[in-house]
Amino acid sequence: MGDKLRSLQTDTPEKGFELAVKLAQKGVEVTQPSEKIRKKLRPKYSTNADSLIAVSQVIAIHYQTVAAANNYWRVRVNY
Amino acid sequence: MGDKLRSLQTDTPEKGFELAVKLAQKGVEVTQPSEKIRKKLRPKYSTNADSLIAVSQVIAIHYQTVAAANNYWRVRVNY
Amino acid sequence: MGDKLRSLQTDTPEKGFELAVKLAQKGVEVTQPSEKIRKKLRPKYSTNADSLIAVSQVIAIHYQTVAAANNYWRVRVNY
Amino acid sequence: MGDKLRSLQTDTPEKGFELAVKLAQKGVEVTQPSEKIRKKLRPKYSTNADSLIAVSQVIAIHYQTVAAANNYWRVRVNY
Amino acid sequence: MGDKLRSLQTDTPEKGFELAVKLAQKGVEVTQPSEKIRKKLRPKYSTNADSLIAVSQVIAIHYQTVAAANNYWRVRVNY
Amino acid sequence: MGDKLRSLQTDTPEKGFELAVKLAQKGVEVTQPSEKIRKKLRPKYSTNADSLIAVSQVIAIHYQTVAAANNYWRVRVNY
Repeated sequence: MGDKLRSLQTDTPEKGFELAVKLAQKGVEVTQPSEKIRKKLRPKYSTNADSLIAVSQVIAIHYQTVAAANNYWRVRVNY
Repeated sequence: MGDKLRSLQTDTPEKGFELAVKLAQKGVEVTQPSEKIRKKLRPKYSTNADSLIAVSQVIAIHYQTVAAANNYWRVRVNY
Repeated sequence: MGDKLRSLQTDTPEKGFELAVKLAQKGVEVTQPSEKIRKKLRPKYSTNADSLIAVSQVIAIHYQTVAAANNYWRVRVNY
Repeated sequence: MGDKLRSLQTDTPEKGFELAVKLAQKGVEVTQPSEKIRKKLRPKYSTNADSLIAVSQVIAIHYQTVAAANNYWRVRVNY
Repeated sequence: MGDKLRSLQTDTPEKGFELAVKLAQKGVEVTQPSEKIRKKLRPKYSTNADSLIAVSQVIAIHYQTVAAANNYWRVRVNY
Repeated sequence: MGDKLRSLQTDTPEKGFELAVKLAQKGVEVTQPSEKIRKKLRPKYSTNADSLIAVSQVIAIHYQTVAAANNYWRVRVNY
């Protein structure tokens, strides 16, 4: 997929969740473009429950968007 | 269900709520993959009202998605 | 209604609000199943304005879901 | 209107906003039923910018619901 | 427009954003009607990044409502 | 694009994300119009994980709006 968003359509709910995670990260990256600084912040927020819950919330909001974009993958997928 | 999301469709509103809970947890897990660290954080946030309310909020956002995916289970289910 | 969610449909906007409150509580209960601990937390958050506002927000999110599930009770109910 | 919610339909966007405010308050009231305690909390949060912004957010969420319930009052009202 | 909300319809996305800003302010005003107190709070929150981000979030929620009310201004406007 | 919002329609999901970022910034700018003050705040919030997560959340909310405005770019774009 690279850095550019090409589509909100994904084959499965699982892939859609991965996209939501990427979107949440992208929102951070545009505000703090330095990978070095972002990596430096990681040990703290990734071991802080409230920060983790906040990240999970941003993912949840994006997942609403991605799920709607995929019409909720209404036909059950077979693996 | 395993770790992979296979579908957002559930048989009942109750099962849908369980799925929303899993989605909220999944959002934390992708950010902090270490189960050991997550378990270490649990005693603190699970006894902190504001953290619990924040978790409940993330679940609420996912429940919007799951409920929409199921067309709100509009036909009343019989047990 | 018991503990299990049977339906998101309610007869009135008022009953829908009650359901939204239950859903918000349920999100806390799944994270902290001990009623004893939850009761212990209550005196603090129920006298803290910011916590009360946060609870009200979770209820608001669930009320969006419940109201949509009921097509906003568009026909005015008569009592 | 009394304490019970009878309808989410309102005649105007302004009345809808008032309803959203009531819904936000109602979410607080169900969690802290004591009017005495709520009044005691008021001087603090009503002079705290972050608390006021948080209240405004809860109102905003409810206003989404009320506006949708009224099909966004799409026909312009005349006074 | 005055203080009363007459319509959620606006001619352009820009005017819609202005309306979202007004709605966010209105949510604060109903909770703290004193203009004097609100002005006193302003220097602090308007120089605090987290408060500014929180205000921006409330505007974002209202903008969802206003944009939906205008069917997202789907026909491109000409100036 | 200039400062005025002309349209919520964008050619690609990527351009839509850029617009969501602009909308989040615009929400801050209307509340704190001084570019000097905003720049002064930047070093602090852009190196604070919780602030960055909060910004990402505002972007996520706007992205919901922009994505809906574009019908989720449902036809896959070719580059």
